[in-house]
Amino acid sequence: MSIPNLLAERYAGGEMRAIWSPVSKIRREREFWIAVLEAQRALGVDIPAGAADAYRAVIDDIDLDSISRRERRLRHDVMARLEEFCELAGCEYLHWGLTSRDLTENVEQTQIRDGLALVRTKAVAALAGTARRAAEFATLPLVARTHNVPAQATTYGRRFAAAGEELIGAIGRLEALIEDYPLRGLKGPVGTQGDLLELLGGDAAKVAALEAALAERLSFARTLGAVGQVYPRSMDFDVVSSLFRVATGPADLATTMRLMAGHELLREGFGDEQVGSSAMPHKVNARSCERLSGLATVLRGHVTMAAGLAGVQWNEGDVSCSVVRRIVLPDAFFAIDGVLETYLTILRELQAFPEVAAAEMRRWGPLMASSALLRAATDAGSDRSSVHALVQRHSLAAAEAERTGRLYDLAVALGADDEFPLGADAAAAAIEGALAPGRAEAQVTAFVEQATELVNRYPEAGDVVPEPLL
Amino acid sequence: MSIPNLLAERYAGGEMRAIWSPVSKIRREREFWIAVLEAQRALGVDIPAGAADAYRAVIDDIDLDSISRRERRLRHDVMARLEEFCELAGCEYLHWGLTSRDLTENVEQTQIRDGLALVRTKAVAALAGTARRAAEFATLPLVARTHNVPAQATTYGRRFAAAGEELIGAIGRLEALIEDYPLRGLKGPVGTQGDLLELLGGDAAKVAALEAALAERLSFARTLGAVGQVYPRSMDFDVVSSLFRVATGPADLATTMRLMAGHELLREGFGDEQVGSSAMPHKVNARSCERLSGLATVLRGHVTMAAGLAGVQWNEGDVSCSVVRRIVLPDAFFAIDGVLETYLTILRELQAFPEVAAAEMRRWGPLMASSALLRAATDAGSDRSSVHALVQRHSLAAAEAERTGRLYDLAVALGADDEFPLGADAAAAAIEGALAPGRAEAQVTAFVEQATELVNRYPEAGDVVPEPLL
Amino acid sequence: MSIPNLLAERYAGGEMRAIWSPVSKIRREREFWIAVLEAQRALGVDIPAGAADAYRAVIDDIDLDSISRRERRLRHDVMARLEEFCELAGCEYLHWGLTSRDLTENVEQTQIRDGLALVRTKAVAALAGTARRAAEFATLPLVARTHNVPAQATTYGRRFAAAGEELIGAIGRLEALIEDYPLRGLKGPVGTQGDLLELLGGDAAKVAALEAALAERLSFARTLGAVGQVYPRSMDFDVVSSLFRVATGPADLATTMRLMAGHELLREGFGDEQVGSSAMPHKVNARSCERLSGLATVLRGHVTMAAGLAGVQWNEGDVSCSVVRRIVLPDAFFAIDGVLETYLTILRELQAFPEVAAAEMRRWGPLMASSALLRAATDAGSDRSSVHALVQRHSLAAAEAERTGRLYDLAVALGADDEFPLGADAAAAAIEGALAPGRAEAQVTAFVEQATELVNRYPEAGDVVPEPLL
Amino acid sequence: MSIPNLLAERYAGGEMRAIWSPVSKIRREREFWIAVLEAQRALGVDIPAGAADAYRAVIDDIDLDSISRRERRLRHDVMARLEEFCELAGCEYLHWGLTSRDLTENVEQTQIRDGLALVRTKAVAALAGTARRAAEFATLPLVARTHNVPAQATTYGRRFAAAGEELIGAIGRLEALIEDYPLRGLKGPVGTQGDLLELLGGDAAKVAALEAALAERLSFARTLGAVGQVYPRSMDFDVVSSLFRVATGPADLATTMRLMAGHELLREGFGDEQVGSSAMPHKVNARSCERLSGLATVLRGHVTMAAGLAGVQWNEGDVSCSVVRRIVLPDAFFAIDGVLETYLTILRELQAFPEVAAAEMRRWGPLMASSALLRAATDAGSDRSSVHALVQRHSLAAAEAERTGRLYDLAVALGADDEFPLGADAAAAAIEGALAPGRAEAQVTAFVEQATELVNRYPEAGDVVPEPLL
Repeated sequence: MSIPNLLAERYAGGEMRAIWSPVSKIRREREFWIAVLEAQRALGVDIPAGAADAYRAVIDDIDLDSISRRERRLRHDVMARLEEFCELAGCEYLHWGLTSRDLTENVEQTQIRDGLALVRTKAVAALAGTARRAAEFATLPLVARTHNVPAQATTYGRRFAAAGEELIGAIGRLEALIEDYPLRGLKGPVGTQGDLLELLGGDAAKVAALEAALAERLSFARTLGAVGQVYPRSMDFDVVSSLFRVATGPADLATTMRLMAGHELLREGFGDEQVGSSAMPHKVNARSCERLSGLATVLRGHVTMAAGLAGVQWNEGDVSCSVVRRIVLPDAFFAIDGVLETYLTILRELQAFPEVAAAEMRRWGPLMASSALLRAATDAGSDRSSVHALVQRHSLAAAEAERTGRLYDLAVALGADDEFPLGADAAAAAIEGALAPGRAEAQVTAFVEQATELVNRYPEAGDVVPEPLL
Repeated sequence: MSIPNLLAERYAGGEMRAIWSPVSKIRREREFWIAVLEAQRALGVDIPAGAADAYRAVIDDIDLDSISRRERRLRHDVMARLEEFCELAGCEYLHWGLTSRDLTENVEQTQIRDGLALVRTKAVAALAGTARRAAEFATLPLVARTHNVPAQATTYGRRFAAAGEELIGAIGRLEALIEDYPLRGLKGPVGTQGDLLELLGGDAAKVAALEAALAERLSFARTLGAVGQVYPRSMDFDVVSSLFRVATGPADLATTMRLMAGHELLREGFGDEQVGSSAMPHKVNARSCERLSGLATVLRGHVTMAAGLAGVQWNEGDVSCSVVRRIVLPDAFFAIDGVLETYLTILRELQAFPEVAAAEMRRWGPLMASSALLRAATDAGSDRSSVHALVQRHSLAAAEAERTGRLYDLAVALGADDEFPLGADAAAAAIEGALAPGRAEAQVTAFVEQATELVNRYPEAGDVVPEPLL
Repeated sequence: MSIPNLLAERYAGGEMRAIWSPVSKIRREREFWIAVLEAQRALGVDIPAGAADAYRAVIDDIDLDSISRRERRLRHDVMARLEEFCELAGCEYLHWGLTSRDLTENVEQTQIRDGLALVRTKAVAALAGTARRAAEFATLPLVARTHNVPAQATTYGRRFAAAGEELIGAIGRLEALIEDYPLRGLKGPVGTQGDLLELLGGDAAKVAALEAALAERLSFARTLGAVGQVYPRSMDFDVVSSLFRVATGPADLATTMRLMAGHELLREGFGDEQVGSSAMPHKVNARSCERLSGLATVLRGHVTMAAGLAGVQWNEGDVSCSVVRRIVLPDAFFAIDGVLETYLTILRELQAFPEVAAAEMRRWGPLMASSALLRAATDAGSDRSSVHALVQRHSLAAAEAERTGRLYDLAVALGADDEFPLGADAAAAAIEGALAPGRAEAQVTAFVEQATELVNRYPEAGDVVPEPLL
Repeated sequence: MSIPNLLAERYAGGEMRAIWSPVSKIRREREFWIAVLEAQRALGVDIPAGAADAYRAVIDDIDLDSISRRERRLRHDVMARLEEFCELAGCEYLHWGLTSRDLTENVEQTQIRDGLALVRTKAVAALAGTARRAAEFATLPLVARTHNVPAQATTYGRRFAAAGEELIGAIGRLEALIEDYPLRGLKGPVGTQGDLLELLGGDAAKVAALEAALAERLSFARTLGAVGQVYPRSMDFDVVSSLFRVATGPADLATTMRLMAGHELLREGFGDEQVGSSAMPHKVNARSCERLSGLATVLRGHVTMAAGLAGVQWNEGDVSCSVVRRIVLPDAFFAIDGVLETYLTILRELQAFPEVAAAEMRRWGPLMASSALLRAATDAGSDRSSVHALVQRHSLAAAEAERTGRLYDLAVALGADDEFPLGADAAAAAIEGALAPGRAEAQVTAFVEQATELVNRYPEAGDVVPEPLL
């Protein structure tokens, strides 16, 4: 009764699945073993010339069932995979001087590193898409809301810029993490490299050379120096928390788009054959945005799992982290991949409804103009606190009228009020002025420039096309 | 590139996998639809006599690929499964008056309910195993440790009793949860049952009868009354937090057994063909206990996910919970099943080393006897505070001697000290008395009785045999 | 530089602060010590007749600074408090046969138990308030939303009923927890009661009698049997997760009210001197609802802390839980108290805007009537799938018109469409019928009955008046 | 009934308390207001020359009770503090063109930034202390443990190096965070700077100049560009997760030291008047290490709280984050400060017990030599798999003998076994060789060099002296 990994199958894209698939991991392990073998041979370890080729010839003969049968017999996953590979190749020159974790930690780190790079590429693509939408809607007027209540004027594009700026911060952290991410290296069961030292005739320089050769083969710039059997699990926490960090900008915007959908300010796209609610054919639900919120909730759980691994190491290590990392590492990558795939699709397909936004602006404009009216009145000589009360009273009346479907022209009402020092026309002008969205457009432009500069550093992001969502 | 769910495949048992498998879910859904159809027909809805049979005839024709193709086209998972089932049956009498969540919520609740029952059974089996070990080791002396440092005498069995008592608490919560767990019922898209009311000719009594019939078919004692589209996600939090609660007793004991393994007080069993560390053939690692600790860490992440769903509902509901529940519900059940499978195996296979325990007792006994020596001295007329300092001084000297490999007979040393009012023999007698483990045995007996009473209520737990661990 | 506990000072009420205040805890400890002293004396321990009175005479002389000075000297908090109390009383008959945790665990459990009872009372008051509002608004029409988008008709009161039903579930869990909550009891440093057994002359029956006397004095129905130095921390997890559970119903409703505020369907109350946003005097922000959401987020963190304590016990215990419990136990109670205080205030002060709700209903009614129109058309003989497309087309057109401010009378448009089998009047009638909120009112009534029954069991809840919010 | 913040009062140091104290925050706010006032005046806003001085004259007249009374009346904390300050100064030139969050967000960011800098300084001091201990114990032999079971030889100092290397990673992240940490800046209620633009006569350049002047006064290198009312809460998540990251190295080592204390390999220091367990005077408990583990558990809860704020923003913002940030920001800083204070004290006071370590090495040496024996035998011509079984058999026998207190000289036994190709002397030599701790010393040296280089960049860390622990 096979149970699929739903994060992988329903939400993540093919490239991310490929990084974490069982077959891919076994292939990476075999490459690792061959790399070590070759480096050991180059350093004088007695391994025949043809050994590497013998292994390389069968590197793609990957039979998960056979390995699984071995594991059930041996109760040791690494030994099972080693036995399988050696039997296929017909020789036993692998894993010399190594302990299981020399294999698994380093190989998992290549998966993590490749996963991070893929996330970076997609995050940059997401930033590019965000910048495109921000630019497209840079000047489209919108009622900004605080406490979910109309507050002041802004623009559609400005909301995308806010999410985009948040994403830039996350990409920066991702870049720093990738840049600095060290390989555990070959350290042996307790980290002292004792077995390798003995294998290499007590020559510490050869141990260093072996490790350096491996790091180069695996494309890591540096290795850790003083780990135990396992590298510090806080490194995994760094990875998972960085992935969650990438999700936050898209998730913030998704939350806001769910709110906007409720005000008909925009909607997600609608596939041609997509079935709407049978009872309510007109409904276009922001279900991709909701999915994105959900994936962020999943990632918060992953953050808890990863935090639970850090700061609790016993001595040189054990396998209490094993099941956790088997789950949280791939799953966090699948989840963030699902976030980015979903977000890219939303960016492509969303439709804005400018008429609805304009109607909102007309409706709320006068009420949002209170401070402008206040300023106009005090400029005309009124006392600030009394005119504050006056404007508040009229604004509340206008709001009340609006709710009950009556007309209440705030400018006219103020103009007619003896306590207000200005006429209706001046009040109307103040209201009109208050509809200007401050520096929103300039802020969008600045964001787009910043984003573009970053995007241009990653041309590969231009090729990212989200897969069709389920 | 298929990615398996590792919690399911590596850690959970077959029964739990069966509850949550994709095929099982589809079958449950089909049964649900047929049950609704039959109840509707019985209440007068115009459905032909043979309809249920037509569906029942194809209920096991489950083709996941075909359904998946439909879903990719329709972008709607329920419609895809409905279309498939109806085409197979050649008629369309299902899902009348229902919304998707009428199907999915109720069906998932049957999975949850069956999962809880399975967990309860296995937890009871785990309690039985714990009680067996507690009884077996009820009087086997052991140095109890606080702050990980020897403190007073206890017994091996007493440690099992502590974990077992914790498990009894968890089982109690599980029982209450199962007992009280309500079905969401048939409520329609916003919870008002409007569509069913209309389908049933506006007859509210028929709506109630339909819902009652369904609840009875699904074996639920009651239904919720005022949900929206979704039942409150705090119910899922209750489930997941209860599962974590079940893990805590075993996880506490596993942590302690990992510590005991470090003092050679016990070891996990060792399979016949199991491969030990090649570098250290003598090592028997507490890796199952470590796994159990790891699974508890995974469950803590699940608790965070489930908590993240509760208290954040928008209006009558949406699908922001969907991806989270697809992950956290099955995975939490797989994780707790892994906990219990692992724990049952540990209980079966563990070996105690009484000689090591006895040696520890000999070594630490005198140092743990300080309060007894104190009492003996004050009973003999010494001043409490001065004799406290005296005993402390000799104890520290004895500890120091022990660490440096020198002999230091505390009784002899005290007897020879003029300030101590008693001779060496009396001191030795006080030390001997301090080795008694208080009421440990009686406490074990009381626990075993309590456990047995509970276990006897669940005879099915006697049949539980853990599957071989990977 | 004193730092207050903000959860206590800004959010919790005075009664909850009283339970957890430093002074209150010291007083509880002193009562505990005296209770043990008296019970020991009654069982024959050699304690003079006046000892209890000597302590009782100074029980309220609580000088935190003096105790703190002692603690800095002794580096042991319990010894500092014991020394202070004994010096005040002028004698030393306390804490015999006990270890620190015999004192602290049991005393903290009385705080927890009293805290739980207070939460139950306030939660019942919150339920009563919810039921009052549900009844008040039972028939007030409201557009229900799924995916935050209008879906079908419901009523205002129905939303309160949903939150109230969720709260009933939480209260049930709280009741079960309180009912079943066992005292750790007097167990000594490793749980075996060895010291007490010796103090009481080896008479196990006396040990049991002492513990039973204490439990009775502290009003606990049962004690644990086989704990180590500490009771299982999963019991704290049960407490904290139950508190979070209580928050979820109010938090769900608060989230929805924040959404409703954004649609002007209701607003929170507004204090007489309360300062609104100076820039936007008309704004009434749902800041109490937002606060409630925030407190739920805080509680999720507390759940993580409590989960981090459970399942990780080393042997018979240590103090790695100490700092965590010092924080999470009071803070979780302060947070839930803040939730309930805030929620009670919201319930009292909120104002509904029925006219806005009515306007929404008029606007969305036709679009929500699709399934009714569909049914009317198929009843009149149309083919279901073609009429589905037809209704969908007109509905989408109507939605589009609405967004762009044009008129589009759906009934008229359908009536004029040759493919639609009915006239405009029949279509209008179908639309009218679709505005009925199903069984919403009956569901509210059922909820109110259920709530009333529960509330009536706790007359003390009637006295709860929330304190003014900061 | 005042409730103190225990994290602040019991665990954090005075400097950290000073950063987050209520008085300090009010003073920072007043400085902020004056800075804005002066910058506005410099840009031509009509503010009299003496205004800043009038405020500055009363900047330290901070009366929390008076402010609190105002807040209870106004139900608005910022307005309460503004009113108080203005009344003290006798004028009203503050907060022009600002919204509350312009004040609070920026001021909190100065607290965060100063807190991060203090954490960095203490973390560097902790690294220096770790390096000192690593160097001191660089060559002191120690049995390394995996799965908590003896595995191979290492050194005491090597364990400190591992924790220190983990700390270096955390400090690197902290440095990057501080380096890059942007100020929110002056953005107004929805982020568009509309009010400031109007205040400054529509001159966008002046708005930019005002913000730049403020950032410079507050010592921030850059400001955010496109925030809403609030800066992205993922920035708070970055802060809190970085603080947790700092805790992980010390917490890993603390966990290991708790284990080592259980094997008497070291102990924490013991204050002169410190009261040990009265029942067990010899006991020296690793309670500071346990506290450190506990504080890490608290921080995990803080990570959950901070994660719960990120990715859930509604539109331009609201106050649902307010209570969470009031708790999690100071508390996470108090917790990490407690971690570092505790860790620094542990590093100063701990005592190693080399004799115990040496005894462990003698005892476990032969069993840890299996791979060396294997290699020696295969070098001498034996078949690898048969000799593996042989060595395993003798090792298990030796382990069994050790447990039961019998003698079993592994070298002698192997030498006497016909299947083993070497004599007892050669076996003994192999065993002796296996006691060498590989490259442990060199790894320690490399770590110390790396640490020293980092420490030298922060001379202020040399002045850090931990406060006495409670």
